[in-house]
Amino acid sequence: MRTFKSFASDNNSGVHPEILKAITEANKGHALAYGDDSYTKKADKRFEEHFGKNIDAYFMFNGTAANVLGLKAITNSYNSIICADIAHINTSECNAVEIFTGCKLLTVPSKDGKITVDQVKKQMHLLGEQHHAQPKVISITQATEMGRVYKKEEIKKLADFAHKHGMLLHMDGARLANAAAALNLKLRDITRDAGVDVLSFGGTKNGIMSGEAIIFFNRKRGYSTSPSKGFKYIRKQGMQLTSKMRYISAQFIALLSNDLWLKNARHANKMAKLLEKEIRKIPELKITQKVETNGVFVIIPRKYIKKIQRQYFFYLWNESISEARFMTSFDTTEEDIENFIKAIRGTIK
Amino acid sequence: MRTFKSFASDNNSGVHPEILKAITEANKGHALAYGDDSYTKKADKRFEEHFGKNIDAYFMFNGTAANVLGLKAITNSYNSIICADIAHINTSECNAVEIFTGCKLLTVPSKDGKITVDQVKKQMHLLGEQHHAQPKVISITQATEMGRVYKKEEIKKLADFAHKHGMLLHMDGARLANAAAALNLKLRDITRDAGVDVLSFGGTKNGIMSGEAIIFFNRKRGYSTSPSKGFKYIRKQGMQLTSKMRYISAQFIALLSNDLWLKNARHANKMAKLLEKEIRKIPELKITQKVETNGVFVIIPRKYIKKIQRQYFFYLWNESISEARFMTSFDTTEEDIENFIKAIRGTIK
Amino acid sequence: MRTFKSFASDNNSGVHPEILKAITEANKGHALAYGDDSYTKKADKRFEEHFGKNIDAYFMFNGTAANVLGLKAITNSYNSIICADIAHINTSECNAVEIFTGCKLLTVPSKDGKITVDQVKKQMHLLGEQHHAQPKVISITQATEMGRVYKKEEIKKLADFAHKHGMLLHMDGARLANAAAALNLKLRDITRDAGVDVLSFGGTKNGIMSGEAIIFFNRKRGYSTSPSKGFKYIRKQGMQLTSKMRYISAQFIALLSNDLWLKNARHANKMAKLLEKEIRKIPELKITQKVETNGVFVIIPRKYIKKIQRQYFFYLWNESISEARFMTSFDTTEEDIENFIKAIRGTIK
Amino acid sequence: MRTFKSFASDNNSGVHPEILKAITEANKGHALAYGDDSYTKKADKRFEEHFGKNIDAYFMFNGTAANVLGLKAITNSYNSIICADIAHINTSECNAVEIFTGCKLLTVPSKDGKITVDQVKKQMHLLGEQHHAQPKVISITQATEMGRVYKKEEIKKLADFAHKHGMLLHMDGARLANAAAALNLKLRDITRDAGVDVLSFGGTKNGIMSGEAIIFFNRKRGYSTSPSKGFKYIRKQGMQLTSKMRYISAQFIALLSNDLWLKNARHANKMAKLLEKEIRKIPELKITQKVETNGVFVIIPRKYIKKIQRQYFFYLWNESISEARFMTSFDTTEEDIENFIKAIRGTIK
Repeated sequence: MRTFKSFASDNNSGVHPEILKAITEANKGHALAYGDDSYTKKADKRFEEHFGKNIDAYFMFNGTAANVLGLKAITNSYNSIICADIAHINTSECNAVEIFTGCKLLTVPSKDGKITVDQVKKQMHLLGEQHHAQPKVISITQATEMGRVYKKEEIKKLADFAHKHGMLLHMDGARLANAAAALNLKLRDITRDAGVDVLSFGGTKNGIMSGEAIIFFNRKRGYSTSPSKGFKYIRKQGMQLTSKMRYISAQFIALLSNDLWLKNARHANKMAKLLEKEIRKIPELKITQKVETNGVFVIIPRKYIKKIQRQYFFYLWNESISEARFMTSFDTTEEDIENFIKAIRGTIK
Repeated sequence: MRTFKSFASDNNSGVHPEILKAITEANKGHALAYGDDSYTKKADKRFEEHFGKNIDAYFMFNGTAANVLGLKAITNSYNSIICADIAHINTSECNAVEIFTGCKLLTVPSKDGKITVDQVKKQMHLLGEQHHAQPKVISITQATEMGRVYKKEEIKKLADFAHKHGMLLHMDGARLANAAAALNLKLRDITRDAGVDVLSFGGTKNGIMSGEAIIFFNRKRGYSTSPSKGFKYIRKQGMQLTSKMRYISAQFIALLSNDLWLKNARHANKMAKLLEKEIRKIPELKITQKVETNGVFVIIPRKYIKKIQRQYFFYLWNESISEARFMTSFDTTEEDIENFIKAIRGTIK
Repeated sequence: MRTFKSFASDNNSGVHPEILKAITEANKGHALAYGDDSYTKKADKRFEEHFGKNIDAYFMFNGTAANVLGLKAITNSYNSIICADIAHINTSECNAVEIFTGCKLLTVPSKDGKITVDQVKKQMHLLGEQHHAQPKVISITQATEMGRVYKKEEIKKLADFAHKHGMLLHMDGARLANAAAALNLKLRDITRDAGVDVLSFGGTKNGIMSGEAIIFFNRKRGYSTSPSKGFKYIRKQGMQLTSKMRYISAQFIALLSNDLWLKNARHANKMAKLLEKEIRKIPELKITQKVETNGVFVIIPRKYIKKIQRQYFFYLWNESISEARFMTSFDTTEEDIENFIKAIRGTIK
Repeated sequence: MRTFKSFASDNNSGVHPEILKAITEANKGHALAYGDDSYTKKADKRFEEHFGKNIDAYFMFNGTAANVLGLKAITNSYNSIICADIAHINTSECNAVEIFTGCKLLTVPSKDGKITVDQVKKQMHLLGEQHHAQPKVISITQATEMGRVYKKEEIKKLADFAHKHGMLLHMDGARLANAAAALNLKLRDITRDAGVDVLSFGGTKNGIMSGEAIIFFNRKRGYSTSPSKGFKYIRKQGMQLTSKMRYISAQFIALLSNDLWLKNARHANKMAKLLEKEIRKIPELKITQKVETNGVFVIIPRKYIKKIQRQYFFYLWNESISEARFMTSFDTTEEDIENFIKAIRGTIK
């Protein structure tokens, strides 16, 4: 296999060397399984350093599970979850949310993946009506599926609205690091301190091999499953309890140490800016979203798509308008971008 | 953390160096996500080498998922699954089978974890009765939770009975390698060729970091979900689709190359035999199961339990009779056993 | 309690005298439970008279169950169901479809409750993509929630499209009788003969006390559960198997004999026309939907709503535009309408 | 159809004339749907008269739903429910408990259908262990499936044990009336006052056409769904909300007025005693259970079974020992028993 660099997705990248090193170093002797090991304890400490005390963090194998089980912990089967129509939990989990939580997703239209209190309000009808699923969660993605970023105040407004109505705020943070880097804020600023109740904290798209975390910020607020008491059963039942947990823990220890999470995210964001700059120089291409994190969305004349894809595979995000998505990652280099742009230019000529 | 060797479980061991090497070597450049990579193609080939053509193999994160989703693919929600009372799917999945498949587990009593056609027959009542869950699957564990092994003919009898009654045979092969090593047979001999329809093929307890596989041996036989067409959606929905699949694939390529799976299993089995031999020399201890694979079950006078556990943590398998379970693993050394026996002798004196 | 006649819903009406008589007459001696009785056999015959041979009919307690279990029988948990945004299965089953089938509802916007092939087409994307729920069913309501009627050809087009794409057509026929009466067609014309695969056949809104039927028209077409073999277990598991089935059967025998279903539906439709005529004479009111069956949708100036509701309770269908829904029923009389109109006029003056 | 009287089941009987009368009388004019009617309010009052204030009662269509949704309201998906192996919820709900609640049923062996605290204790292991479903409910049947009766003190012991361990006591009261009649106690004595938390209150086997009730006795005790706030959504989602609720309510009003429930149950019990007496006179037959309520269990030589069944259909309860179950009901007459005994004697000669 040719060692290539793709712009198809940030999960086409591999494992960051520091993280692979952490895995290798954890491979010594035996360790108790299922989280009763020193690595997992240390990882819990790292989470506390970043998010504060009195939280409950649970590792999941992937982002689907982090979203689904996090939502399951805070809903009843007769609830609904309000989110953007293009939210990953709506478009890309193959009904996992529905089958695991029972909840209906109430979607609001969004071009940039962000939603507002005004949009949420429109879904708040028939409260108390037994025929209708009852809204319980607002779920937002940070950074969004379109690479856009919620400001702290925007999150706070949604959280306040949710809490005022007995609801909770869930954040799909598959790319939380990129958002924090873009805003130049701490992880805690745009999650716990902005009122988020439950976070899917992503690692895989930021240099980890496999692993995400659900973090519950509040042990009291109306969860259907106690995060500190009942959730471990949900994790096991949800087929997300790993026996050799030390290897996920070691990865997160590395990611959350020495600002590795931030360096990786900043670099990916920076590369996206560079890619944007180069694309803007090509008049046939049209950038459709403000580039705030590590995604660049571009309308490319339809006739060029297949030719470019043959050189650099990528996804058409919106086929109807021939819009492509390019993602940069912690390991994208200036040379990668140069080569990619060359390939595009070579095709378009 | 002290680098110790535990006999508590074969999942307390780490990753075999060859497998860690394979992970490290796979960490080059980018690869398409979700299985569209060359490693996964190569892993599929390896499965074919061991199990033959026309199979469908899917990676899962852990054994719970391999069992649960494999069973989901071959059942309807109104079916029942016949298994031993001490089967892992009954005792240790925290209802994951029930919630995901809807099926009821019909258990038959078993001291060694094995079940027979005669026992299965007793569960075959009220067929066609709408009030009663209809038996659809016989699920066996190879090697069993008690370290015991089904002979090929024993499996064949269960498979024949199942197929004669329109049912299927599922095998939880978390320790299949140990069973094959004990029987001196190929993996295929005691699975596909013995009539098994669906296999959970374990890797984690045999030197892998994280990963198991579901293998469907028969594309035609009355699955509720087509293994070659529909199962990919079940995997995704079951929160088991990993983005960076190359890392699981690379591990299985290594495990299934150069007989690594066999060497690891043989070694673990051999160490169990050695441990057995040493334990039999201690008159206060009583071995309760024939040692066929990598588990040694021992009744230890109750007063010694805590003292030994403080030095070498282990699980009481059956508290009511003070029966402990000791597991050996690919990395257990003769010295480890020597030290462990010393610790026991030092306690018992 | 004052004996009043409401226009709030056609399920505010009672039981038609002929149907109550049938119940009373069935109350003789003993009958085998769970459908092994002569009444149920006779009801099956009636269904065959109306819909033809080689069908499978199952009684349910209510319309929710008829919709949900009918859909469950023809879907896998990774499928999606395409329907109108205002379809009852989407708005008014409190997630029963989602939790029981696992399926996501893909909605298309509709003012009159009808959907078209063009709208369905827009939902047919990402076929074969493992991250995305796969469309399997088009579900339509006849008559729609807005009292509108699909013509036979319109249904046929949707059925043809569905079948061409390996999908099935489900019809929520809670008010099928009203639609057939409006079109002056037989029940079979706009269901089986128009290509419908699975029908929820409503009785409650047409004079029955309690009871609906699921009718499967095709035993071969890709159901996930065999309608003639597996569905009885789904019914039991779905908590819809009634022990004293003769009482539901007797009701349906009466409904389907001597054109009672048609007389009831025709009368209700006729009363709606009369109500429409009277409402059109009141300049402050504005009819919003063509009156084709037994529903009349009317925008009423907001200030009058509460006053009228105090005399005749009704539902605001669309609060944002102050649109009320008035339903007529088999027992609505011209005098009832006269009195109702008087009450409205008295309020508006 | 010949008007015959069966001893196969108490649900082969019809509707008691008083109850049919109540239905007929409720068939006047319109009534608001879904429980907002005066009949349902009155039925609630009746429940309060029998069980006291501060309860929450919900109608279900059948006993399966009453058991399943009652259990769903008080469990999480990672719980287990301890019950007798022959409990109806284990043997005869076609996995409805499992699929709806996710819970595993932990069964204890029972000849008479009753279970004891000592038996429950043996299931109380691995508490707090994430791999294992956590016991949450003890479910008992009163009268049991074998016609046996728990004394008040026996229930109290189970309730005390449950509450001491943070668990709840559920009672399947499909034949509660027969038990109360047998014990000469009030309904409340052996339910709420004995510590029962949730009751399935049966009507169908005691003269009702169709309908059961779930009664929650305690609004505070650790339900997973608030009985007074959340349960209405569970009912709707569970496909158990009837639109024309007045007809179920009217039946329960009649059943709970003028001691009709008691008269019916007493009569059925008395007829069982008579049947027992007559059977004991036939030396070839052997009664296997003390006759306490309305069931008589009898071992009949295998060669007579089919011959008797042809005249009076009944179920073989335990085929392996040729044990039949005969049920009496509110409408069984002395003459019916005389004829039945004649038929048996005629066969045995």
